[in-house]
Amino acid sequence: MLSVKFGFGRFWGILGFYSSTNMRLKLPITCFILQIILIILFGVLVQYDEDTDAKKHHHGNHSKTKPDIENDFYYRYPSFQDVHVMIFVGFGFLMTFLQRYGFSSVGFNFLIAAFSLQWATLMQGFFHGLHEGKIHIGVESMINADFCTGSVLISFGAVLGKTSPVQLLFMAVFEVTLFAVNEYILLTHLGTRDAGGSMTIHTFGAYFGLMVTRILYRPNLDKSKHKNCSVYHSDLFAMIGTLYLWMFWPSFNSAITEHGDPQHRTAMNTYYSLAACTLSTYAMSSLTAHDGKLDMVHIQNAALAGGVAAGTAGEMMLTPFGSMIVGFLAGIISVLGYKYLTPILENKLKIQDTCGIHNLHGMPGVLGAIVGAVTASLASKEVYGEGLEKVFPEVAGGHRTASYQGGVQAISLAVTLGMALFGGLIVGFILKLPIFGAPRDTTCFEDSLYWEVRKPQSHFSVQLRRNDCGKNNKIMNHKHQQMIRC
Amino acid sequence: MLSVKFGFGRFWGILGFYSSTNMRLKLPITCFILQIILIILFGVLVQYDEDTDAKKHHHGNHSKTKPDIENDFYYRYPSFQDVHVMIFVGFGFLMTFLQRYGFSSVGFNFLIAAFSLQWATLMQGFFHGLHEGKIHIGVESMINADFCTGSVLISFGAVLGKTSPVQLLFMAVFEVTLFAVNEYILLTHLGTRDAGGSMTIHTFGAYFGLMVTRILYRPNLDKSKHKNCSVYHSDLFAMIGTLYLWMFWPSFNSAITEHGDPQHRTAMNTYYSLAACTLSTYAMSSLTAHDGKLDMVHIQNAALAGGVAAGTAGEMMLTPFGSMIVGFLAGIISVLGYKYLTPILENKLKIQDTCGIHNLHGMPGVLGAIVGAVTASLASKEVYGEGLEKVFPEVAGGHRTASYQGGVQAISLAVTLGMALFGGLIVGFILKLPIFGAPRDTTCFEDSLYWEVRKPQSHFSVQLRRNDCGKNNKIMNHKHQQMIRC
Amino acid sequence: MLSVKFGFGRFWGILGFYSSTNMRLKLPITCFILQIILIILFGVLVQYDEDTDAKKHHHGNHSKTKPDIENDFYYRYPSFQDVHVMIFVGFGFLMTFLQRYGFSSVGFNFLIAAFSLQWATLMQGFFHGLHEGKIHIGVESMINADFCTGSVLISFGAVLGKTSPVQLLFMAVFEVTLFAVNEYILLTHLGTRDAGGSMTIHTFGAYFGLMVTRILYRPNLDKSKHKNCSVYHSDLFAMIGTLYLWMFWPSFNSAITEHGDPQHRTAMNTYYSLAACTLSTYAMSSLTAHDGKLDMVHIQNAALAGGVAAGTAGEMMLTPFGSMIVGFLAGIISVLGYKYLTPILENKLKIQDTCGIHNLHGMPGVLGAIVGAVTASLASKEVYGEGLEKVFPEVAGGHRTASYQGGVQAISLAVTLGMALFGGLIVGFILKLPIFGAPRDTTCFEDSLYWEVRKPQSHFSVQLRRNDCGKNNKIMNHKHQQMIRC
Repeated sequence: MLSVKFGFGRFWGILGFYSSTNMRLKLPITCFILQIILIILFGVLVQYDEDTDAKKHHHGNHSKTKPDIENDFYYRYPSFQDVHVMIFVGFGFLMTFLQRYGFSSVGFNFLIAAFSLQWATLMQGFFHGLHEGKIHIGVESMINADFCTGSVLISFGAVLGKTSPVQLLFMAVFEVTLFAVNEYILLTHLGTRDAGGSMTIHTFGAYFGLMVTRILYRPNLDKSKHKNCSVYHSDLFAMIGTLYLWMFWPSFNSAITEHGDPQHRTAMNTYYSLAACTLSTYAMSSLTAHDGKLDMVHIQNAALAGGVAAGTAGEMMLTPFGSMIVGFLAGIISVLGYKYLTPILENKLKIQDTCGIHNLHGMPGVLGAIVGAVTASLASKEVYGEGLEKVFPEVAGGHRTASYQGGVQAISLAVTLGMALFGGLIVGFILKLPIFGAPRDTTCFEDSLYWEVRKPQSHFSVQLRRNDCGKNNKIMNHKHQQMIRC
Repeated sequence: MLSVKFGFGRFWGILGFYSSTNMRLKLPITCFILQIILIILFGVLVQYDEDTDAKKHHHGNHSKTKPDIENDFYYRYPSFQDVHVMIFVGFGFLMTFLQRYGFSSVGFNFLIAAFSLQWATLMQGFFHGLHEGKIHIGVESMINADFCTGSVLISFGAVLGKTSPVQLLFMAVFEVTLFAVNEYILLTHLGTRDAGGSMTIHTFGAYFGLMVTRILYRPNLDKSKHKNCSVYHSDLFAMIGTLYLWMFWPSFNSAITEHGDPQHRTAMNTYYSLAACTLSTYAMSSLTAHDGKLDMVHIQNAALAGGVAAGTAGEMMLTPFGSMIVGFLAGIISVLGYKYLTPILENKLKIQDTCGIHNLHGMPGVLGAIVGAVTASLASKEVYGEGLEKVFPEVAGGHRTASYQGGVQAISLAVTLGMALFGGLIVGFILKLPIFGAPRDTTCFEDSLYWEVRKPQSHFSVQLRRNDCGKNNKIMNHKHQQMIRC
Repeated sequence: MLSVKFGFGRFWGILGFYSSTNMRLKLPITCFILQIILIILFGVLVQYDEDTDAKKHHHGNHSKTKPDIENDFYYRYPSFQDVHVMIFVGFGFLMTFLQRYGFSSVGFNFLIAAFSLQWATLMQGFFHGLHEGKIHIGVESMINADFCTGSVLISFGAVLGKTSPVQLLFMAVFEVTLFAVNEYILLTHLGTRDAGGSMTIHTFGAYFGLMVTRILYRPNLDKSKHKNCSVYHSDLFAMIGTLYLWMFWPSFNSAITEHGDPQHRTAMNTYYSLAACTLSTYAMSSLTAHDGKLDMVHIQNAALAGGVAAGTAGEMMLTPFGSMIVGFLAGIISVLGYKYLTPILENKLKIQDTCGIHNLHGMPGVLGAIVGAVTASLASKEVYGEGLEKVFPEVAGGHRTASYQGGVQAISLAVTLGMALFGGLIVGFILKLPIFGAPRDTTCFEDSLYWEVRKPQSHFSVQLRRNDCGKNNKIMNHKHQQMIRC
């Protein structure tokens, strides 16, 4: 290890890279290089699709052009914006629960999401099929890019507080790539149905992140344990994230289903799954506390498990009845996970899962995949009528039976788990290289390592030094929790 | 009273029910039983409607199927999501203004909304008309369910801080049922127009809640008075709620109007009503303070009264001019209510209305109903043209005159007031039973009764005990406002 | 100056107007008069347009009526709501970064936006063309009114903390008027393309505001400097504003483009511009700090510059590649502005720009205008095909060449700058009149001047006075940052 460290030291030394947590060069260089590569690749590879291009949209004579209202924009843009809010506000604020890590939670979420959606456009475009060597983009590709980004942000939840922004960007580079490969195998090769991404997004993101955090295991993390806490208002900020995720999950699951009844149905199934999940979450949270008091961690997270678990079967004829059962179970599983499984994972398996993504995305994702497999295997022309083609084109076309489709769904879960765990293993070891400026064990869960934050101030120093509070004046009194930035 | 208490004590004693505020069994059992009943009833009664069912949507040959873009989803889903945000973030955060009751405000709002929307689907489906014994659901029923939920949350505002979550769930059970009955009488029997719910939602929810809080009157509530306050940041959180309600109210009022011009017109009327209301609110807030300073309570609440007051007439040809007059008056009435009427209600009528719902929903709701009645009575073919059929089908069809319709609207207000007050009376007495774990007079407006909250900490104890802040370590120092949860 | 002051003193003295900061009469009278004028003018001038009027919408026989789904409502309402959120939550919360000015930031933003959107409806309606003496309104006019409001809020950012609400209302009266004139010259007379308002909204609002704050220069503003700071949670509140602006900027730029591919394309171009801008912002923020730490000011503001800079060219065939280059540069320029230009503007040019609008709206707006001019001059039938008519009708119609259009775009920038600077000069001097109750140098950036705010409290006083915290009891202990309102 030491030799690796010094070997890299020589190579990166000139640039100030090395194990220092100072981001002065590391972060700008990483951002600039990544963004310039993205711009070049976009210049070479990316084109407007039929619905966004001025010329292609108006081919031939006017009478043959489809009416403007049938532009995919009007079918999908409202859903896209809901998904967009989930990615940036939902995930971002959900993670602000930590008392001194709000800037990083919402800020690094912002950074890696802005990067990932560009990179995902390329990776997904490449695997989903080129058009004469070009990637065609429109609102559907934007939604898909946001979806892929969601997967990265799930993994971020596992390593929250313990990684530098440069580590996170590199994690995103690799994870987006693997996500696209896995999605390609499932959707294109196997013909799997997974509109809401129980497998491709949640299961993948969760187990990838869990493996990464396992590899990055910190035996001395308890040195920062006192900062791995929430305060009153940070929990309220986190509820903003929770509620936006909860409210817009119906849009998430339905965003890229077929037009018409599948989109409508998916949104409705998810709505009822989430509602049922919320009641079972409150019940379990109170039941598992010796004094019956609700735990904000459960409410913030487990109440969302119903959306994850409806990700695959949501577009199918799951019925509101079925959706509610799924959501109900997801909430129970998730709270139990937070209460009993997370400590075991941490103590026995050395998996330090900051946000408990195993409980919110991991187990509910697997549940969703299983529900999807079962529901698919029960599909029939009798239930779906002509609509079967929209949901199971291969079954409707007679190329496979419903139970075969169910089997494919189950295999897809296994493939996803394998890809996620293997990928996380490799990427975890890459991220362990001492060149990315990871925080030390004593400075985890702490904004001031990467952000300009005025140090906590006592009132007395406020009183005395009021007029000195100039641009660069850092007041160093630690007595008070409140931090001031001038 | 004592005998009732002990009588129930014997019955529920085994389960740990009784007047204890410990929710360990009360809350889980209530949630589980309610949710399981819901699931069973959904299984028996609920089906997809034509626009959500895979089979029904594609009946007969393809050429007869309506184009996907005419699926009701694309007409209403964006409005639905706006309404959804109002219910969960709008109402939830509006009530976080209390300094130590943010978890409960946003958390209990979440719980009872998640329950109510399921229960409302059943109740409204039952009364709005069964299809061969089944309830058909789609995006419109989802909006209606959210509307009904809104009514429950209005009532929640009156009893905020003084009720246990179990009480709130039981209140929701009864209120949703009565809401559906009242709505059925108005919309189906009387042919009342009330798209934005000035009567069915706001007037009903407000007077129901006021009656409940009257029955639950606490003579010694001043024991908790020091907690019935806002702090600086809690007022900012509340503004999140206010703004989302304000911005999306045009979507709320227009969400279930007829397609096309009525939906468009309703949104616009509401937009102008709210804008005018905001100016009169600021004016009145400053005018009624001896030092001219604005009061956050008014801004947070009264500025919304314009949306409430445009709830009935919004879909009619009220004109932006008319809408602005309505909003202008609503803002004035609402601020005057907060300033002068609320203290009278509390001191003389023993109505302890935590959020002042009488000023935001009660009076403006009645105003909206009256404006609706007047506007309806002035409807004519000359003004509405062929569009009369969409707004007043009975008048357009010649079954009643415009002034008759106006009379029906006025009667509907009376019916609603009667239902709300009578219902609130009964439900208030039910909720008074000592089995629901209501807080004591000294522990109202206090999250720590029902939520896992680390007790307030002084800085000194932070300093000294930093490293002990383990999972279950409660620091009990009361000197500091900030609460930490680890 | 003295004589002017006393001259006005005599005139306004009776009404209690004068240099007092007490708003008791000033604010109510201003609000009431403005709102009543608005109502009267709406009554006289404003009518529903074809898509909102019940009669006009259903003219002639039914078969000739366009289908409901083609009502402009369904094309534009989701975008309108996104813009609406940007105006009220985006701008409002972006400015809550100041530690003691959150109520005013979000509250005055609310007030002047509610006024401006009404006034803008009239001014824009007047200039955009009357229909037999009437202004016709619908969802498009609502979006335009919100756009104009955005311009006023940009100017608000420059004078934030240093102006009374009455000053702001008067600023809005004049700025909206000038905005409409400038917009009229550009869009109607010159045939300029500026769908996302790089010029009409951002450049105009920024330079107008900068000139106003220049005229209102306060040499002794450093007396309030200690309050011109952020605290930890105020920065998180500001991030809510940032993220909503960032997420919905694609909707902003595309809200009033032509239906179909232009709307779709604009949203997508803006999406990629913003993503690239975010990475360059993070890079520059870290690079320009000696310790490599990110600065919240940059993240909150500069990351949005990509949206501003894509305002003009967004609807053109800019390509995602071009959009990303534009966004990338905008982020760099903006951070450099915050770091190096703002101090120069303040010290040398006496421009005290509280929010740094020159860096977020000024320079990126000019960049956007230039990019728009260049992109327009490169337009050709080859690239746009039949779609040329939707983006450049005059070029498609053969009335002007593409390079001529480019020249027009460049001239439009000069016109806008001239109008903004000249207008700001005049309006600045008007606002300097001592009748509007501007704060004194020592009470800038302070909510308690205009808002009912309980004074900061120490814990000890909390302990001792807990039970006295009645309705009108102000606790005056200054030791503690937390303010309580009861």
